Amino acid sequence: MTPTKRVKATVAYDGSGFHGFAVNRDVRTVAGEIEAALATICQEPVVITCAGRTDKGVHGRGQVISFDVPTDRVTDPGRLERSINRLCRPRIVLRDTTFVEHDFDARFSATWRRYGYRVLNRDDADPLLHGRVWHVREPLDVAAMNAAMHHVLGEHDFTSFGRVPKVDEGQTPPSMVREVLEAEWSVVDELTVFEVRATSFVHQMVRSLVGTSVDVGLGRVDPTTIPAILAARNRHAAGRVAPPEGLTLWDVGYD
Amino acid sequence: MTPTKRVKATVAYDGSGFHGFAVNRDVRTVAGEIEAALATICQEPVVITCAGRTDKGVHGRGQVISFDVPTDRVTDPGRLERSINRLCRPRIVLRDTTFVEHDFDARFSATWRRYGYRVLNRDDADPLLHGRVWHVREPLDVAAMNAAMHHVLGEHDFTSFGRVPKVDEGQTPPSMVREVLEAEWSVVDELTVFEVRATSFVHQMVRSLVGTSVDVGLGRVDPTTIPAILAARNRHAAGRVAPPEGLTLWDVGYD
Repeated sequence: MTPTKRVKATVAYDGSGFHGFAVNRDVRTVAGEIEAALATICQEPVVITCAGRTDKGVHGRGQVISFDVPTDRVTDPGRLERSINRLCRPRIVLRDTTFVEHDFDARFSATWRRYGYRVLNRDDADPLLHGRVWHVREPLDVAAMNAAMHHVLGEHDFTSFGRVPKVDEGQTPPSMVREVLEAEWSVVDELTVFEVRATSFVHQMVRSLVGTSVDVGLGRVDPTTIPAILAARNRHAAGRVAPPEGLTLWDVGYD
Repeated sequence: MTPTKRVKATVAYDGSGFHGFAVNRDVRTVAGEIEAALATICQEPVVITCAGRTDKGVHGRGQVISFDVPTDRVTDPGRLERSINRLCRPRIVLRDTTFVEHDFDARFSATWRRYGYRVLNRDDADPLLHGRVWHVREPLDVAAMNAAMHHVLGEHDFTSFGRVPKVDEGQTPPSMVREVLEAEWSVVDELTVFEVRATSFVHQMVRSLVGTSVDVGLGRVDPTTIPAILAARNRHAAGRVAPPEGLTLWDVGYD
């Protein structure tokens, strides 16, 4: 076997041009583009691991990936980064590319992930933010949204705010318990922004929390009902799922 | 002749999808799209006037337009705005559409125009700002750039910082004298932003001021040479012209 070196890199991407992060035959994905660049550079297939798989239309600012490269093909991480960026830009850009120990894994070594969700809360749309925000015309009560999100802090079963993965018959479905470390709405210039950090997230969790937050902000859901929604452990107890374009994976923590 | 009403509207647009503002047969332009929508709504050709013609790739946040509509077709400006937006979104969005007096002209009634230019000044590119900023990797000396732009404040002949329009033989070329009311660089979050306000601008003036500012910021041009560059009244005396994608027409003033 060829000796390999493990690489860690941070990735930013404009999700609007991709069918999500994870490789998916026949459609353009972020991982698919990076793996194609690596195959060209390394002259052999390279599989990448990421800290958080993002859905179609979701953006990345500080996604983290790891992968192994043959030492006879790659000697300098800075040069590797420039080669990948030449092949993947402008929609995908790698930075902070370094060699790491073989026990580092972008997914399993991560201790937290932080996402940001941007809402444009005003009457008129903004063409320069199209595909980057969720446009909500009716005024939002940000204090009520924060009162609601206060209830999701800490460890909870997030079945009501996520999609349970399909498992084969007889298999135990994976735990939906997650620990939320931060969850706060704030007004930043013209945008209403949700910042949420958790050890990890169940599928569609941020967009579900945002959808319910917005329903609270519009007065359709009472913020005091969140504990009951969590306790129901039923997807139908929560509000709608916010559209993907407002969501960005901001950064990932490692010890 | 059908009686008409004059309409004033503010327009935001993502310039990356257009060959500039002004109508130009065979290519997609902002005015072309709006006039096509108006022709559909009014069932007759409508010509629009704008406060500032922007070049290919330049964006608009507060462009102002005026045009006349037949009173038998258009009775409510809010409804007209919604109809245009339905046809032109998401890349073009009108707001603040109102009826105005017949002596209002988006171009000739304007007393000032303000533009913003955004530079991403760091090593790595940002896919989410692609087509919205000029990416300059080497560190910029913002204080030197401001020292340079201090010299363009007030009334000057801007031949060195613009393109002289072509005129027919025997005709007097138009004046290149303009009055700059504000011209300042500042650092806003991750961006280095130039804000410039003038009574009006000669063609490519903002991009020329930005190009020379950046050359100053990189230490290639001395800020004290700006008065001599202005006095030269020669395009070749100034630095390069900055790319269009960093430029946005912010707003327009009327008395």
